[in-house]
Amino acid sequence: MLRAQVGCSRELSFLMEAHDGLSAAIAKRAGFTGLWASGLSIASCLGYRDASEGSWSQLVDVVERIVDSSQLPVLVDGDGGFGNFNNARLLARKLRQRGAAGVALEDSCFPKMNSFVGDLHPLADIDEFSGRLRAVKDTVAQDFVLVARIEALIAGHGMDEAISRAHAYAEAGADAILIHSRRTAADEILAFVRAWQNRLPVVIVPTKYYRTPVSAYREARISTVIWANHSVRAAIAAMRQVCGRLFAEENTASIEPNIATLDEVFELFRYDELASAEARYLHPPGRG
Amino acid sequence: MLRAQVGCSRELSFLMEAHDGLSAAIAKRAGFTGLWASGLSIASCLGYRDASEGSWSQLVDVVERIVDSSQLPVLVDGDGGFGNFNNARLLARKLRQRGAAGVALEDSCFPKMNSFVGDLHPLADIDEFSGRLRAVKDTVAQDFVLVARIEALIAGHGMDEAISRAHAYAEAGADAILIHSRRTAADEILAFVRAWQNRLPVVIVPTKYYRTPVSAYREARISTVIWANHSVRAAIAAMRQVCGRLFAEENTASIEPNIATLDEVFELFRYDELASAEARYLHPPGRG
Amino acid sequence: MLRAQVGCSRELSFLMEAHDGLSAAIAKRAGFTGLWASGLSIASCLGYRDASEGSWSQLVDVVERIVDSSQLPVLVDGDGGFGNFNNARLLARKLRQRGAAGVALEDSCFPKMNSFVGDLHPLADIDEFSGRLRAVKDTVAQDFVLVARIEALIAGHGMDEAISRAHAYAEAGADAILIHSRRTAADEILAFVRAWQNRLPVVIVPTKYYRTPVSAYREARISTVIWANHSVRAAIAAMRQVCGRLFAEENTASIEPNIATLDEVFELFRYDELASAEARYLHPPGRG
Amino acid sequence: MLRAQVGCSRELSFLMEAHDGLSAAIAKRAGFTGLWASGLSIASCLGYRDASEGSWSQLVDVVERIVDSSQLPVLVDGDGGFGNFNNARLLARKLRQRGAAGVALEDSCFPKMNSFVGDLHPLADIDEFSGRLRAVKDTVAQDFVLVARIEALIAGHGMDEAISRAHAYAEAGADAILIHSRRTAADEILAFVRAWQNRLPVVIVPTKYYRTPVSAYREARISTVIWANHSVRAAIAAMRQVCGRLFAEENTASIEPNIATLDEVFELFRYDELASAEARYLHPPGRG
Repeated sequence: MLRAQVGCSRELSFLMEAHDGLSAAIAKRAGFTGLWASGLSIASCLGYRDASEGSWSQLVDVVERIVDSSQLPVLVDGDGGFGNFNNARLLARKLRQRGAAGVALEDSCFPKMNSFVGDLHPLADIDEFSGRLRAVKDTVAQDFVLVARIEALIAGHGMDEAISRAHAYAEAGADAILIHSRRTAADEILAFVRAWQNRLPVVIVPTKYYRTPVSAYREARISTVIWANHSVRAAIAAMRQVCGRLFAEENTASIEPNIATLDEVFELFRYDELASAEARYLHPPGRG
Repeated sequence: MLRAQVGCSRELSFLMEAHDGLSAAIAKRAGFTGLWASGLSIASCLGYRDASEGSWSQLVDVVERIVDSSQLPVLVDGDGGFGNFNNARLLARKLRQRGAAGVALEDSCFPKMNSFVGDLHPLADIDEFSGRLRAVKDTVAQDFVLVARIEALIAGHGMDEAISRAHAYAEAGADAILIHSRRTAADEILAFVRAWQNRLPVVIVPTKYYRTPVSAYREARISTVIWANHSVRAAIAAMRQVCGRLFAEENTASIEPNIATLDEVFELFRYDELASAEARYLHPPGRG
Repeated sequence: MLRAQVGCSRELSFLMEAHDGLSAAIAKRAGFTGLWASGLSIASCLGYRDASEGSWSQLVDVVERIVDSSQLPVLVDGDGGFGNFNNARLLARKLRQRGAAGVALEDSCFPKMNSFVGDLHPLADIDEFSGRLRAVKDTVAQDFVLVARIEALIAGHGMDEAISRAHAYAEAGADAILIHSRRTAADEILAFVRAWQNRLPVVIVPTKYYRTPVSAYREARISTVIWANHSVRAAIAAMRQVCGRLFAEENTASIEPNIATLDEVFELFRYDELASAEARYLHPPGRG
Repeated sequence: MLRAQVGCSRELSFLMEAHDGLSAAIAKRAGFTGLWASGLSIASCLGYRDASEGSWSQLVDVVERIVDSSQLPVLVDGDGGFGNFNNARLLARKLRQRGAAGVALEDSCFPKMNSFVGDLHPLADIDEFSGRLRAVKDTVAQDFVLVARIEALIAGHGMDEAISRAHAYAEAGADAILIHSRRTAADEILAFVRAWQNRLPVVIVPTKYYRTPVSAYREARISTVIWANHSVRAAIAAMRQVCGRLFAEENTASIEPNIATLDEVFELFRYDELASAEARYLHPPGRG
């Protein structure tokens, strides 16, 4: 069931971006049944650039907070695995220990650069990257989902390269293929899907080609859509606006209607459970 | 100069809440020259309740990200110091090492409960809490600001108790007094300020009594206003809305205009600096 | 089976102290089938005093290294749970997530002081501490062992107090009782065992009364003996000697015979596995 | 003065290996005035292999414990900087923040393998590695020492390569050169020193060629000798022996004379300071 939520669904399913315990709790509250622990978003919250600046153990610690706070299946953006096959399998083991449901590894080199920044990033050698995938599959339990993310299209290496990599990664044991694109239309993605013929479930990230209706993805029998960074981008816009107004107006009165109440915070994290637990464990009736 | 920004200013100054590297960078961009590392906000982002659930070392790690990302003076909400005088001085040492400009310690017991949750929280013994303050002052360098936060009013113990504590904490070495109130008008705060007569600078947190114009604080010669949780509350409202719409609409097209662009993220964290550094260090002209 | 190794054995079993990944691997190599993650040892390795200076999350991180390195059942010295029932249950959840087999909680107050330092430490209120135990049992899965550690004897509060606490803690759900003593003979411990009549398995820590032969514990049908700090104490003596000689002699030649070889380090951590994994994943025959 | 202790001394000075807060405190007690935070030792204590398994942030956290516990100048074994120039300068910034006095960066690729394991490791490109050095020098304050570690000899690339790299690294801003060798005699090192003519101070690590008397290094006007792993190797031998005997003998009586006492632990970490601080801050005379 975890598997179905994080990249291997037969019906189109959705993963909502989360970057900390708070965004995870909000996404769950909204109804999402699976999360995407976004590398870009997590890096940003830590004040890092999405260029392998944060360490793998810092990522693992954030993922733990996301899992604990939401109790949802979480697919983790593991970049390229933070090094070679040995770093990748270590990362996977730790992510599983902290409760993640799966990891997506991309065929990039270390340190990486965000896919949307710069052009023609070098891709990892197919065999070397396949070795990373095999090492992960041989290390972690079968219930941990391994998604192979192909950067060939977004890095400008063409469709043939993408398909050929998909075959190699399937052979190496990937459970699903994430195909990434920076085009503003979904044509490239849909062409990939036609050529690939669902040999493994396909995961997509419509950040740039957001105008395509999801019906197109259902028709194409795509498995999973990741809303990859929309929560952090919403937060940025809102915080920028509130900071700007507070700095200019020196008053929160006009802002209050647009921001969450403290009670909403207390409700989101179940402060009532703590109160009732205090009654049960700290001041039990007939005891203290 | 640090001191002036975090609680000891002669003219009214403002500290904007931050809870991670991202919110810190945004607050700085908006013009703020000092930050408040809020316990409630940081706990929420970690998925914890503001009841001493997160550890002191987790707080220290978040503060490091806030400092590194903003390079601003940061006053840290240190709760009661996470234990006794020994824990408090250890916390202060570590916060200073990570670059914080000061810490606010409140006269609560460990574990604490958020000031706005529940009633009549027990206060720490005056002498015991004064010992925490003295231990901190004897441990860290003089440039590190120590703010004594008085919970007497918000916990319902009355004005005499508050004033008497302020005197004791001043004698113990505090650099400023943070007086907290849960009333929806500033009358209680202003009464305290009149009685206190600025024997030490006064810091306030107008979360509940937000309708009072800041001119009243300037007249009262209050030193510092903390906007204590408005960034995280703005983020919550925005993320809740985006998650709700994405879950219902299965499409981001109508959301795009309301959220930050990826380019804004790249600009905020100076991805251009990384590109120029690559040119300088990785591919220097005439070398590689 | 985990349970049998960490405090609930019918035959006398032994837990060897570990304080990091290295000491854990060495204890396993020596044949031990269960480990004690000692609070004193771990604090010392971190450069802290055994007085709640290290945070609970730092403890959890060290325990993770112990578990990962040894793959043995680990009983964790959890002090008093680092606060109240809420901190205790959070600690237990995190320890289990990192792979620990159980936790021992002692009826001390926060912050604690090492049992062998100072006299007549205050004990926790029986009902309050029982609430911590109940909260842990209600939170973590049944396979996670909860040992209640009684400080009544070592803190000088007498046998009646100890027995009465043992009954209360058993009722609260403890899986075993750890009874601690600072006497140099085992008489106090054996008296407790006679009075207690094995209502729950008994765990002991013969640090001070080390001259008693273990046959006495087998006769008394004690469940578990913890060698609580001997690895770190051996390491201290050895490092002190080597540092002293190196400082005085400015030469390692005479020291070499007494210290482990680098090959022993490489063998302990299975560097050969990494070499063979490189052959399999990084340079597979017929691929690269 | 810091600089003199960690690689830039005119008279021969010594750095003692440390791997945690405990070993650091012991080395200081023995008289050492500078420490070497060894990558191999730290990895081993974490249960990792010295092959870039531990993350850079885990290294930084350990270094903090070493610095805090010893208050000595610490030169950190930073491997190759954990990636490219950007990772290297980030690492250097964080190490300096935690109080380290300097970092040694080696011209290896990421992930690295321990210098004594395997043969003919690939070296980093000279220009690329020089870029890492320049980036560090441009980022951190001038008082932070940057040692360039040359792996050319130990990796089997010959003397000419080593000298040519030393010149490049000096030009790039290194403060000292660490030249490494796996030969059992010092001839290779001394030949390098003759050819290099002290254009920058030279640091050596006589792990394999330990029979050479230090008088030879003084004559050669070498700056610094690092005892790189002797504390951890002493600890391993001692823990192995104690674990073996405890497992076999089920009794600590015969072991006690050979291990440190608890009082020694309490003295090493100044538990007396805590007691006197309690008297001063927690129970002040005439107050409580």
